Amino acid sequence: MIHSRILFSATLAFVLGTAVDGRAQSLNDVKTADTPLVLKAQGSFFVGGDTVEQTQGELGDLGPGGHITVNQMYVRYMVPQGGDGNVSVVMLHGATLTGKSWETTPDGRMGWDEYFVRKGHAVYVPDQVGRGRSGFNQAVFNNVRAGSAPANSLPRWLRFSDEGVWPNFRFGTKAGAPFPETQFPVSAVDELSKQGVPDVSFGGVPTPNPTLKALADLAGQVNGAVLMGHSQSGSFPLESALLNPAAAKGLVLVEPGSCPARYTPEQIATLAKIPILVVFGDYRDTPTGIGTLPTWQARFEACQTFIKRVASAGGQAEMLAPPDRGIRGNSHMIMQDKNHLQIADLILQWIDTRVAKRSNDKK
Amino acid sequence: MIHSRILFSATLAFVLGTAVDGRAQSLNDVKTADTPLVLKAQGSFFVGGDTVEQTQGELGDLGPGGHITVNQMYVRYMVPQGGDGNVSVVMLHGATLTGKSWETTPDGRMGWDEYFVRKGHAVYVPDQVGRGRSGFNQAVFNNVRAGSAPANSLPRWLRFSDEGVWPNFRFGTKAGAPFPETQFPVSAVDELSKQGVPDVSFGGVPTPNPTLKALADLAGQVNGAVLMGHSQSGSFPLESALLNPAAAKGLVLVEPGSCPARYTPEQIATLAKIPILVVFGDYRDTPTGIGTLPTWQARFEACQTFIKRVASAGGQAEMLAPPDRGIRGNSHMIMQDKNHLQIADLILQWIDTRVAKRSNDKK
Repeated sequence: MIHSRILFSATLAFVLGTAVDGRAQSLNDVKTADTPLVLKAQGSFFVGGDTVEQTQGELGDLGPGGHITVNQMYVRYMVPQGGDGNVSVVMLHGATLTGKSWETTPDGRMGWDEYFVRKGHAVYVPDQVGRGRSGFNQAVFNNVRAGSAPANSLPRWLRFSDEGVWPNFRFGTKAGAPFPETQFPVSAVDELSKQGVPDVSFGGVPTPNPTLKALADLAGQVNGAVLMGHSQSGSFPLESALLNPAAAKGLVLVEPGSCPARYTPEQIATLAKIPILVVFGDYRDTPTGIGTLPTWQARFEACQTFIKRVASAGGQAEMLAPPDRGIRGNSHMIMQDKNHLQIADLILQWIDTRVAKRSNDKK
Repeated sequence: MIHSRILFSATLAFVLGTAVDGRAQSLNDVKTADTPLVLKAQGSFFVGGDTVEQTQGELGDLGPGGHITVNQMYVRYMVPQGGDGNVSVVMLHGATLTGKSWETTPDGRMGWDEYFVRKGHAVYVPDQVGRGRSGFNQAVFNNVRAGSAPANSLPRWLRFSDEGVWPNFRFGTKAGAPFPETQFPVSAVDELSKQGVPDVSFGGVPTPNPTLKALADLAGQVNGAVLMGHSQSGSFPLESALLNPAAAKGLVLVEPGSCPARYTPEQIATLAKIPILVVFGDYRDTPTGIGTLPTWQARFEACQTFIKRVASAGGQAEMLAPPDRGIRGNSHMIMQDKNHLQIADLILQWIDTRVAKRSNDKK
């Protein structure tokens, strides 16, 4: 059933008691920075990829069968002028999302991608394998369509409903009822909905997820990087660091879905050589609304346990919980929150202190 | 069957007689420009989108059912410092591809996106609805998986094989056998393969394709734009211009899949008020290797017929065929060819002449 956006948004506006423009945010809502952005370079490239042979049917039955590339990871990057010598930062998005997470916020403010560049860091923003511009392996879908594979061989495509996002991303306990102090720009929550793409990570990409190695290889290609993951990819920096420890200059786990307890003492010893920062926002004990998913408080506590393990091995793992500093209201989408630059500054400060002082601060 | 990339590329290198690095191109192959890129603004946003209600199963069976947004169009943009008053340019990609088409070339050279920005134009690069960061509607796939819809209700996902691309995109008559004068960087053809994503345009997006209206709306939001389409989207600028003629300042059809003959005299009269440029490369009579697809020469000729219709209505439609100017070897992926900036300059010159003189040329 298709509703018009105007109707739905008008309903939401009524619920919120605010004047949400049903016509949706647009370019007109995007703010322009006060000063120009000066880039030494920008562009995009791919990391990894496997060549596979597929039949005409698997390719959609237009042209003849042959080879294609799958499991490659798309990366967009910006390198600031004058940032030579500063550590690069890789920003990896979470479930049902793409690299768009780190770009212009739903209400049109500068994204963390540009902000970190303006602070002197080269920034690399991938789309996870299986999503966005990285694509996915379509063969099984065409095989099921043709009747040559059973329907139950299909992986599922995951998306979160707009209503489910409110408690799970901790904007409020239910849709249209924001927490009084929420930092998420809830009047633009429809724009977050547009960032959603179907996610085939759970069954539709190889095991281990090719993004892990691609992330490790990317870190190596840029001569070392701070690896930042979010939510479903929150623990990916840990996994990639174990694959290529020398290239992992620092690990930032933003609202990670998990801090795994499974690591061996040897793995913990490896991770203990790398500065690690875990970031969690507010309202963590809100029920997620999804029976199989624990509260974010439970994940926060698992990360505290992980931090203690790393500390016991002599490492420098730390928790950044803004509420502990009197900063209230941050959501799961903390990089899009209204105070997102305040949070970014805390992470940049941690990079300066624990990883590498920025060269433009040295001058 | 999965081959290692090294094995496949080594085979290709043997066929080509060139030293293709099997490890694939990477960031190390990306060239950095001689001068910095100074941007007034950059970022991303969405155009359009419909709110739909879906069941828990349609959403992948993790969280509860509810609303999501589909049919939105992702747009990334860069606005040059000092380009105020210049006409904006929208670059829309072709089948089985994303906006990546216009970014860094397969062999690491600057993309048309950045080049046009450096020439003073704001550039907007969308992903078509159904692909890349625009996402697609996953409901039917999950319904088939659950057995609540028949397998033959699935739309097909299209990808072109690497072997099929060679004749269809006119790099050579068959894979590994480039035309002697080809302008496509065939040593990096594996990187083009990575740009491929599954394409559900033919059956998996609503009719008419929501990208057409989104493109028209985008042109309006930026106060008018030159609309550029490529291949499968080559005729989209015409369609969007008919939806919003006032916002279509110029139409550039790059190697269009078709120049439709179906337009009414009234529609031709509308299009005749807008400068139109059609661009076709070399080797157009190469058999496409796909029985159902005509040669590009046949499409070229249909576009010449279209141009004549527009001219008869008093319009300014023109053909830009580099071979007619002694420029040989251009492929279907002309924006990635080795002489891509030479072609870009011809288009920029056309914009200056027919659409609007650039302000930085006026100074």
